[in-house]
Amino acid sequence: MSVLALSGGVGGAKLVLGLRVVLGTGNLAVAVNTADDFEHLGLHVSPDLDTVLYTLAGLNDPVRGWGRADESWNFMGALASLGGETWFALGDRDLAVHVERTRRLQMGETLTSIVADMASRLGVAVRIVPMTDDPVRTVVHTRDEGPLPFQDYFVRHRCAPAVAEISFAGATEARPSPAFAAAIADPELRTIVIAPSNPWLSIDPILAVPGVRRALEDARIPVIAVSPIVHGQAVKGPTAKIMRELGIEPTSSAIAHHYNGLIDGLVIDESDASDVEQIGIPVSVTRTLMNDLDDRRRLAQAVLAFAETLTGTATGS
Amino acid sequence: MSVLALSGGVGGAKLVLGLRVVLGTGNLAVAVNTADDFEHLGLHVSPDLDTVLYTLAGLNDPVRGWGRADESWNFMGALASLGGETWFALGDRDLAVHVERTRRLQMGETLTSIVADMASRLGVAVRIVPMTDDPVRTVVHTRDEGPLPFQDYFVRHRCAPAVAEISFAGATEARPSPAFAAAIADPELRTIVIAPSNPWLSIDPILAVPGVRRALEDARIPVIAVSPIVHGQAVKGPTAKIMRELGIEPTSSAIAHHYNGLIDGLVIDESDASDVEQIGIPVSVTRTLMNDLDDRRRLAQAVLAFAETLTGTATGS
Repeated sequence: MSVLALSGGVGGAKLVLGLRVVLGTGNLAVAVNTADDFEHLGLHVSPDLDTVLYTLAGLNDPVRGWGRADESWNFMGALASLGGETWFALGDRDLAVHVERTRRLQMGETLTSIVADMASRLGVAVRIVPMTDDPVRTVVHTRDEGPLPFQDYFVRHRCAPAVAEISFAGATEARPSPAFAAAIADPELRTIVIAPSNPWLSIDPILAVPGVRRALEDARIPVIAVSPIVHGQAVKGPTAKIMRELGIEPTSSAIAHHYNGLIDGLVIDESDASDVEQIGIPVSVTRTLMNDLDDRRRLAQAVLAFAETLTGTATGS
Repeated sequence: MSVLALSGGVGGAKLVLGLRVVLGTGNLAVAVNTADDFEHLGLHVSPDLDTVLYTLAGLNDPVRGWGRADESWNFMGALASLGGETWFALGDRDLAVHVERTRRLQMGETLTSIVADMASRLGVAVRIVPMTDDPVRTVVHTRDEGPLPFQDYFVRHRCAPAVAEISFAGATEARPSPAFAAAIADPELRTIVIAPSNPWLSIDPILAVPGVRRALEDARIPVIAVSPIVHGQAVKGPTAKIMRELGIEPTSSAIAHHYNGLIDGLVIDESDASDVEQIGIPVSVTRTLMNDLDDRRRLAQAVLAFAETLTGTATGS
């Protein structure tokens, strides 16, 4: 059985790890948001790709939620003493990925090829595919600070400015990466899972790559989203805050509405079970919080079981 | 009193530190070889500049002889696991200089300006000036391996291949850095010191920058070299080996001959005192080994005292 997941960073990576455990050696691909990528210190940084890579390789820091476990920060300390920019923290081990990726990109290699090779070297069996090899950049249009590049908004401003609109510069000219296109077109594909990442910041850029939304709409297999909302809050990050700023109630039914026409079913947390009747599509209620590996495995199992119940009924719209 | 030193890496940096201690707040500039610079992992690495910078900032590793003291190597370990090139070791703290320098060069800043700023931030009062802001690259022509870029010869091949010739690609089109030109032209300049660096690999590239050799030849102030040869051996590095391979006896009189027409006096080690009569220029005999700071200070004092005895007699040739 072949599964394709769409994912941003931390929350998405947790579910992908769960899917990996459940599927075993089964065929799993994850298309990852690259619109948060940016140039920093002359290096190409891909935060979501790296979070997924580190999580699947067992190298991630589970406490901090980003970067590598057992990390050291001597580079940053030395950079500070040279007057360098230190608002975006790069650990010593993490830096190897950025330096090596930048070098290989400068040599003309694609991001897709670099990520595939790094994943293989780190023993990751999941196919991690960037949504695109082309430059797409999230711009967060804020009410008080104007348009901000994503990392400026996310790290430098700590998501404080109120969001008016989000756009994806370069998206209309981008193409899905060949590996992403192949994963969508795979005749063995049985389920597409939209991970509980931020729909506006992490999933929408993937859907903004020309052809992707249409391919999901037309898919004759179940497309299942896992709601990132638990009891009216986001588990992590600014999802609920952004929803309110955009005039949207942070509920799972609003998530279903956001993915309207795209998904065949929504997995929501048991704390939001009262939302079920307002959601006009099939719903699976389970515990969506993922604190440990067992939670990840259990949620992945629930998602795949739910998809199975929808198989055959899912029709391209 | 204003002093200008010409220096390569380790040995030169030791004497420059000694000069710094002796001159106190006096005016000291050091022109540093940049022909060993190279692009590695997409980063601009300047080994001699960094050795001088770290030594004067008190950050150098005195045991290893290169890089920073109290260094960690987590970047290299992570890079190895990604299949990256690991033949040239970059410490985590050291890496900050390379990343920041590369970023600023890419923004259009000159090496001279970057080094001056970093030195100032690290509390270094000596003016560290690159010999040039233009690309000059040492090529070591070997008998068995053909022409090798310097770091290939020096680090990857550990100086093993026999040297037939050394050339400096780009030298004829290079200009002295503005700060180097200003230091040479400084009317307050009283002495020029050629540090005990490798004359062929570290000093010759500085002299190959158009105008530099002529400026030293014409200088009406003493130009003093410190011989890197002690008892027929180089203190460190491949100087004696290369001299033999080039058909030159590794003696201090050969060093005097190499700098013929350029220097007004040579400082040699007491173990080579018997060479004095073969050296056709004024010689000062002292202990040139520099094991500790006191050695550095004492040698610097001897060099400056020697220069003083030659002041007035030194004439542009």
